[in-house]
Amino acid sequence: MLPVTEPAGRRVRTAALELFAERGFHGTGIRDLAQRAGVSTATLYHYMGTKEDLLAEIMRDSMRLLLRAASPTGTGGTPTERIARLTRIHVLAHAARPLHTRVADDELRALSPGSRAEITALRDEYERFWQSAIDDGVSTGEFRVQAPGVARLALLEMCSGVARWYRPDGPLTAGELAARYVEMALGLLTVDGIRLEPDPGAVGDMDRLVAELWPPS
Amino acid sequence: MLPVTEPAGRRVRTAALELFAERGFHGTGIRDLAQRAGVSTATLYHYMGTKEDLLAEIMRDSMRLLLRAASPTGTGGTPTERIARLTRIHVLAHAARPLHTRVADDELRALSPGSRAEITALRDEYERFWQSAIDDGVSTGEFRVQAPGVARLALLEMCSGVARWYRPDGPLTAGELAARYVEMALGLLTVDGIRLEPDPGAVGDMDRLVAELWPPS
Repeated sequence: MLPVTEPAGRRVRTAALELFAERGFHGTGIRDLAQRAGVSTATLYHYMGTKEDLLAEIMRDSMRLLLRAASPTGTGGTPTERIARLTRIHVLAHAARPLHTRVADDELRALSPGSRAEITALRDEYERFWQSAIDDGVSTGEFRVQAPGVARLALLEMCSGVARWYRPDGPLTAGELAARYVEMALGLLTVDGIRLEPDPGAVGDMDRLVAELWPPS
Repeated sequence: MLPVTEPAGRRVRTAALELFAERGFHGTGIRDLAQRAGVSTATLYHYMGTKEDLLAEIMRDSMRLLLRAASPTGTGGTPTERIARLTRIHVLAHAARPLHTRVADDELRALSPGSRAEITALRDEYERFWQSAIDDGVSTGEFRVQAPGVARLALLEMCSGVARWYRPDGPLTAGELAARYVEMALGLLTVDGIRLEPDPGAVGDMDRLVAELWPPS
């Protein structure tokens, strides 16, 4: 149970965040929420509207904060500088608030179509900062990635993953972690594309192995 | 409802896979499972044991297949070749069986401690192929990544993300997609670490912005 010194509305939101992150949206019952927040179910309904409203609020806040951080950092400067700044911000945000960002990243499927469209629009707006920095870098020749849209998705998945495993009491501070991600992100984007000339025979062997182990269903 | 021409046990497993991927383990009820599989709940219990048994089976199969693919491909050759092969296999597997791999990646928290320990051990065994290839590459100087453990996590998150968005009817075949990921993975690992000398003032500004937007809770 959360400390009762906090206002009930805040306790409800914190309880929702913790439980959605631990058990998922669908795994969290109304009783669990009321119990964790230390309120009656009647009070709970007063503060939360529906359970989905709570989820949508967590996601909306999470995306809006990322957007507020991205708008000054994702514009201006060279594409390399913009990607470095976006990566630093994204990693620091995911290290600082892993529950918020994990819920926002994982539970989109749990939203009804209306809320999903709203959150998806915010996410698309945020991702455009990344995509335009990547595309501009390809234009200037700073980046040599062959599929810029795939690179955006790869970078975002890689950086968001921090929310799943980073612990502030581990060997790296969040700032050091962010610095390592900036290096990796820039390395990923500046691949020369001819670093490896794979033996076509070996590729064929691998693809046959994959087709055998994971047959098309 | 799944076609009744398939044996009931197989229908139950397919229904579980689809529903766990769509709604999450906790979001899937026994009735949903029986309905999708086209069996009675009594038949369902006969085939599935508990709902968690079904989940553990999906995860166990998924990890064992990755391990079977990694053992011939993750050993032998240079570290660059090993990472290229592991990346190709991982991406192809996630593109070919997105539901299996997504459930395996996302639902670990839903398992009871005993099953979780078993699946975690398989996952650790699989990740050791990646880590040893990265560490060997750092030793030989092929890779210049500063935090090899972080690089492993970043690579795996990036490659597993394919299961969330890749569609075979999109612009890239799975083989082309895998080729792009191999390039990005090798770029990420061969970053020279001095590509960007960030302005300490700018880093300070960003960190202050992050601390303001995402205050320590």
